[in-house]
Amino acid sequence: MSGFHHVTREDLDFFNEVMPGRVFSGDDISTDYDHDEMTEYGHFMPEAVLQALSADEISRVLRYCNDRKIAVTPRGAGTGLCGGCVAVHGGIVLSTEKMKKVLEVDTRNMTATVEPGVLLMEFPKYLEGTGLFYPPDPGEKTATMGGNAMTNAGGMRAVRYGVTRDYVLSMQVVLADGSVLELGGKNVKSSSGYSLIDLMIGSEGTLGFLTRLTVKLVPEPKVNLSLLIPFDDLEACIGAVPQVLSCGCDPTAVEFMEREVITCAEEYLGKQFPDTSADAYLLVRLDGPSTEALQPAVNAVTDLVLSIGARDVLLADTDERKESIWNARGAFLEAIKGSTSTMDECDVVVPRDSIPAFMRRTVEIGRETGVRIRSFGHAGDGNLHIYACRDGMDEDTWKRSVKDVMERLYAAAEELHGAVSGEHGIGHAKKGFLEESLGSRQISLMRGIKAAFDPNGILNPGKVIS
Amino acid sequence: MSGFHHVTREDLDFFNEVMPGRVFSGDDISTDYDHDEMTEYGHFMPEAVLQALSADEISRVLRYCNDRKIAVTPRGAGTGLCGGCVAVHGGIVLSTEKMKKVLEVDTRNMTATVEPGVLLMEFPKYLEGTGLFYPPDPGEKTATMGGNAMTNAGGMRAVRYGVTRDYVLSMQVVLADGSVLELGGKNVKSSSGYSLIDLMIGSEGTLGFLTRLTVKLVPEPKVNLSLLIPFDDLEACIGAVPQVLSCGCDPTAVEFMEREVITCAEEYLGKQFPDTSADAYLLVRLDGPSTEALQPAVNAVTDLVLSIGARDVLLADTDERKESIWNARGAFLEAIKGSTSTMDECDVVVPRDSIPAFMRRTVEIGRETGVRIRSFGHAGDGNLHIYACRDGMDEDTWKRSVKDVMERLYAAAEELHGAVSGEHGIGHAKKGFLEESLGSRQISLMRGIKAAFDPNGILNPGKVIS
Repeated sequence: MSGFHHVTREDLDFFNEVMPGRVFSGDDISTDYDHDEMTEYGHFMPEAVLQALSADEISRVLRYCNDRKIAVTPRGAGTGLCGGCVAVHGGIVLSTEKMKKVLEVDTRNMTATVEPGVLLMEFPKYLEGTGLFYPPDPGEKTATMGGNAMTNAGGMRAVRYGVTRDYVLSMQVVLADGSVLELGGKNVKSSSGYSLIDLMIGSEGTLGFLTRLTVKLVPEPKVNLSLLIPFDDLEACIGAVPQVLSCGCDPTAVEFMEREVITCAEEYLGKQFPDTSADAYLLVRLDGPSTEALQPAVNAVTDLVLSIGARDVLLADTDERKESIWNARGAFLEAIKGSTSTMDECDVVVPRDSIPAFMRRTVEIGRETGVRIRSFGHAGDGNLHIYACRDGMDEDTWKRSVKDVMERLYAAAEELHGAVSGEHGIGHAKKGFLEESLGSRQISLMRGIKAAFDPNGILNPGKVIS
Repeated sequence: MSGFHHVTREDLDFFNEVMPGRVFSGDDISTDYDHDEMTEYGHFMPEAVLQALSADEISRVLRYCNDRKIAVTPRGAGTGLCGGCVAVHGGIVLSTEKMKKVLEVDTRNMTATVEPGVLLMEFPKYLEGTGLFYPPDPGEKTATMGGNAMTNAGGMRAVRYGVTRDYVLSMQVVLADGSVLELGGKNVKSSSGYSLIDLMIGSEGTLGFLTRLTVKLVPEPKVNLSLLIPFDDLEACIGAVPQVLSCGCDPTAVEFMEREVITCAEEYLGKQFPDTSADAYLLVRLDGPSTEALQPAVNAVTDLVLSIGARDVLLADTDERKESIWNARGAFLEAIKGSTSTMDECDVVVPRDSIPAFMRRTVEIGRETGVRIRSFGHAGDGNLHIYACRDGMDEDTWKRSVKDVMERLYAAAEELHGAVSGEHGIGHAKKGFLEESLGSRQISLMRGIKAAFDPNGILNPGKVIS
């Protein structure tokens, strides 16, 4: 994966010919491009940044870079959390930030076709009045839809609706050699050869460059309400999850939150959370055609949780109350970030019945290593976000401690048959943990796949696998 | 893909050592093993049939065959429709028919772990009393769950619940070199490297041999009811589908049926269908927690279809009535088969809004070629089963005509941006159509993937891609 060629004056001339006025090099490159949301994983300045507008431009540039062995790092909004979109091997960053068109909303087939740079937060307005919505709901709303597809982003509504993979129907991708492929279609099922589209989803730009995607939409539920359920401790709170999931209430989201994190978010937002009297909370969201239709589900959850140790059930059915809860939930990551000098994160997923065991182990790891650990996450799907906070540690102590914490967390997940990443991906930061978790045979298959798609290894080198 | 070694006496001795009493050769092989459900695609007698009991046995046999370049054809119940499990290159058939154990039902994680030979029809009894069910519902209930996973089988409930791919959480597979891999886990989401499990699903045994799978279960809806909706003609019937899907009724199944096929099924079953006065019917199934909870959906569908040309809406809410309808639906394939000497089938999937156009074209193709064509299918997901019936044609006329019909049908699907197979797979019978539909670049990627998994090409040679 090394031995890439540096970008020369001649290369820049070619890029400028293809993308006039949208090529930046040297001091003209904003330092934004040298990192994603985790500056902890280092700064890597690319030799050039190209802002593409079309698949044709991307095809010409990739063919050129493939011939000359120039490293190409695809980048959307740069909101990733594992260094997936930074140029660790130099070369160019090829950005989709200007490819922001919603090309079609097809209400008959219930699909939408978008360019990869459309932001998650901007997409809903294109669906207004159609009665349809796009269920994937990752916390980071300034991420691009293309980035979401390439990392298989998850989000809050995965319990009921699944993850991004479940909504990507078709993709246009450009291979390293410049070929443009149309994968999938508006068809809702297929048994037509190896699922190249499923291979592309979650490949973090290492197999092809995404230039267009068509996603599935579903009828928008008319009402939603949230139940905030306080528990005396985290264990009782998380222990209730499997029963909530199987009580027939068909929840859209089941999140857990600890008081410390809520307090942190209150400070960060300068807004009060409806209740902070308990140590831990379960937050259950229900969607349906009407409030009356949801009543049996509300009753089922209420009866259940009160019988297994919940202190109370707070119903949030007004917009104001729902907002105060979900805004706090949405601010957890930033709030934790703001509470410490530096941090590292772990995005493991474990089987749902193993969440209590994993959370117990997390508390122990904090105690054993002396590192302050904060966590929140998608209890309904076993995906936990664990943050190790540096606080006042000196550089050496922090480096040693955080390595120790991460190794212990991933080992714990491994023991519980979990996976390294539930929704954030691998990037360059989590590669070692992935290799450890999957073993050499699976990694060698992935290398074989990579070689079939990108024999010169120019696409996002140094990511996912080495 | 040629140049395989024949099975020798010495090979048989080795197989017998690994699987004592479960190795058959020569005249001891039942002729059942030389075909699947479509004898039209030829008879291919394997040189030996091995009935495996464990991953360890399979691993030993594959490693041996890989070293000696002996072709290995995986086989479940042999109920496929495109020659996927027949030994077109000779060698051995490695059967999972004796691997029929349900290993675990895990109600806390809502999963079940089974051996690949468990029949779809036998699985529900293991879930009794758990309140959980396994949604994939392919018409062929004597198929194996392993076969379903390896062809990504779809079925009646795909509209609401998705296809087999959406329910396979983990797989144990043996690679051609004998390595045993554990792919996926009980985790419900993952962004941890390329999705090898999604690549394996639908690969028809060409990339690895499935030896165990864990599937997702969901809470069983307490009640279901079906609406049988007669229309004056097929076009009005199918034209109603997109509106039914987006009216908010969240249907589990939306099937279409023509009178001719219903009559055929009545004869085949010797039982009356509730109504045969109309030319075409839409069959809508709704699932929910109670009859009352389903009432708004029933009203929505009823109001809608009556306003767009339905003659009536017949509610089937008793077991007897539901059975009379769904049993007929389940018998369509066998009924059509029984109505003619030979037939060929086409399992295309098209975007839902293109079903009317495709059906119109199908009728035209029947007229143009003089071949009797029968069809039914999953209107809700655009997956159509079209059957060309030989009836009294002589061999030459039939061969010419059926080739002509199939080429026209696949061309029509291609034009409407459909895919070659919605749920039956490719096998050896549909390879040419797949290559035509995907183009050489996608096929070359699939060949690269195949080479990474199975460099000697011993696993199910001659299937999916050449």
